Amino acid sequence: MSNLWQTGERHLINTLRDMLGTGQGVVAGIGDDCAVVACQGDAGHDWVLTSDPVIEGVHFTAAAQAKDVGHKAVARVLSDMAAMGAEPSWALINLVAPGDTPVKRVEAIYRGAAGVAQQHGLTIVGGDTAEGQVLQLHVFGIGRVPKGKAVLRSGAQSGDIVYVTGTLGQGAGGRHLTFDPRVQEGCWLRQRGWASALIDVSDGLSSDLCRLTEMSNTGAEIQIPSIPLEHAHPSEQPGQPAIDRALSDGEDYELLFTVAARKKKRFEAAWQRKFALRLSAVGVMTDQVGIIDYVGGDTAGADHGYEHFTGGATKTG
Amino acid sequence: MSNLWQTGERHLINTLRDMLGTGQGVVAGIGDDCAVVACQGDAGHDWVLTSDPVIEGVHFTAAAQAKDVGHKAVARVLSDMAAMGAEPSWALINLVAPGDTPVKRVEAIYRGAAGVAQQHGLTIVGGDTAEGQVLQLHVFGIGRVPKGKAVLRSGAQSGDIVYVTGTLGQGAGGRHLTFDPRVQEGCWLRQRGWASALIDVSDGLSSDLCRLTEMSNTGAEIQIPSIPLEHAHPSEQPGQPAIDRALSDGEDYELLFTVAARKKKRFEAAWQRKFALRLSAVGVMTDQVGIIDYVGGDTAGADHGYEHFTGGATKTG
Repeated sequence: MSNLWQTGERHLINTLRDMLGTGQGVVAGIGDDCAVVACQGDAGHDWVLTSDPVIEGVHFTAAAQAKDVGHKAVARVLSDMAAMGAEPSWALINLVAPGDTPVKRVEAIYRGAAGVAQQHGLTIVGGDTAEGQVLQLHVFGIGRVPKGKAVLRSGAQSGDIVYVTGTLGQGAGGRHLTFDPRVQEGCWLRQRGWASALIDVSDGLSSDLCRLTEMSNTGAEIQIPSIPLEHAHPSEQPGQPAIDRALSDGEDYELLFTVAARKKKRFEAAWQRKFALRLSAVGVMTDQVGIIDYVGGDTAGADHGYEHFTGGATKTG
Repeated sequence: MSNLWQTGERHLINTLRDMLGTGQGVVAGIGDDCAVVACQGDAGHDWVLTSDPVIEGVHFTAAAQAKDVGHKAVARVLSDMAAMGAEPSWALINLVAPGDTPVKRVEAIYRGAAGVAQQHGLTIVGGDTAEGQVLQLHVFGIGRVPKGKAVLRSGAQSGDIVYVTGTLGQGAGGRHLTFDPRVQEGCWLRQRGWASALIDVSDGLSSDLCRLTEMSNTGAEIQIPSIPLEHAHPSEQPGQPAIDRALSDGEDYELLFTVAARKKKRFEAAWQRKFALRLSAVGVMTDQVGIIDYVGGDTAGADHGYEHFTGGATKTG
């Protein structure tokens, strides 16, 4: 009888998708950054729903600062909403903690959570607490998009340009605890109709691009020299080349998205006017379904991002 | 420096309520069965939001059937919605499991979850999975009520009759895994305007009545002989009198609510016509703020329900 290590997270998610199916009013169910549901009674909007766990020993170490743990827990959910182009509305937090956890540490966790929530217009309205051996937070978030306008992973077409925000490969360097979710950028990409498909880089460029091409039924060709690397910060894995970190590290929480080639110049000019954040065109979507070519440099190029339940490196920096 | 064991869950919740405050559009924040938020763009409805953890060793034992674990996780959220008089809409499930968990067990958990969800019109639209040492589910639920009609804990007045559905004290006897959430009953109590205040019995009649009186700024007088006991089933704590189990056991997931005294006859007649489920008038709300008198029988009568982080008995039946 197979177990979760043997099958991995993606197999499990596929099984659950088949098992749970979709219901009335479900615009997009399991398999995107958020689920999208039609808001009964509000003909003008859809709601996006998402939930993320943050677990000690998996998503942070015991040495992590409490406020950073709270920040990360909420920022992950905000990043999921950004990846739909949604405006954040409400969140609930479930906290599980050992009974000997100092109350001051718990308060600092919630301060970190409330800080990043407030910055992005998200209101924490409730949740629950329970005793458990390992400190963990489960954050549930609700956001809003104009009806039919959620930017899915499935909208990319062959020929679209592939973009990524910021720089990649610094998750393990500590940024995974303190990152700024790209909420403003995601909303803008949706409002102006630039992005044909959108995802956040939470498991590594390689993994997340794989999902984007799978859902869009395309392939992609990526120019390795165009991938934006952050060389300045020390990494916890100094032996690993920066490009491999960028492809496999995960938890950069930057946006990965596609734009129609005919809009390239206008889009890039509009971005420069709007944001100081770095923007990189890293490749192009192709009609070679399921094939991602990494060209112009040296890398294994495989789908070697982070996956739960497969003995991948624990993210604890 | 104090820790969670020393302060208990309720102190923590009060601290968080003060810290997080409320935001725009929040009808009812931390402190009721669900948070209530105004649905922007839908002038006719509010949304109720709730989340509940179900943790191995706290809410169920390793010996529990997988489908019952999934049932309980979703039914707890449904019971919270019932306690607002809300119609269930959407849910997300976060699953944390050890990597050696058999896939068949995980599938059975989701089958149990999907079964009770479907029965009550709740659609599971997503969630997340992660590896962790202890099996646990965190379910996040969204329901809907007509604007301003959520039945809060705070609406009871002195003189109102106190009712409870079903029978109490069988949580530890196993019912906490397989209970039917009282969704239909909760919606009906709200639709017909019967209930002035409403809560589900998840921590014991004594604890939950305490919350109802606190939030309503009243007291209560309870007739011990009127408390509906289930004597038929064997209990896991055979030494404990049935009345003490009813008061302190928790996890019966029945509804506890108040109805204006002048409606008593009409309400009871309407209930009998509508439901086969037992209904018991167990007492009356009083103006003795904060005082709950248990009369007509023998019991300690203290607020001795279940509270997390205070070394209370673990619910593992």
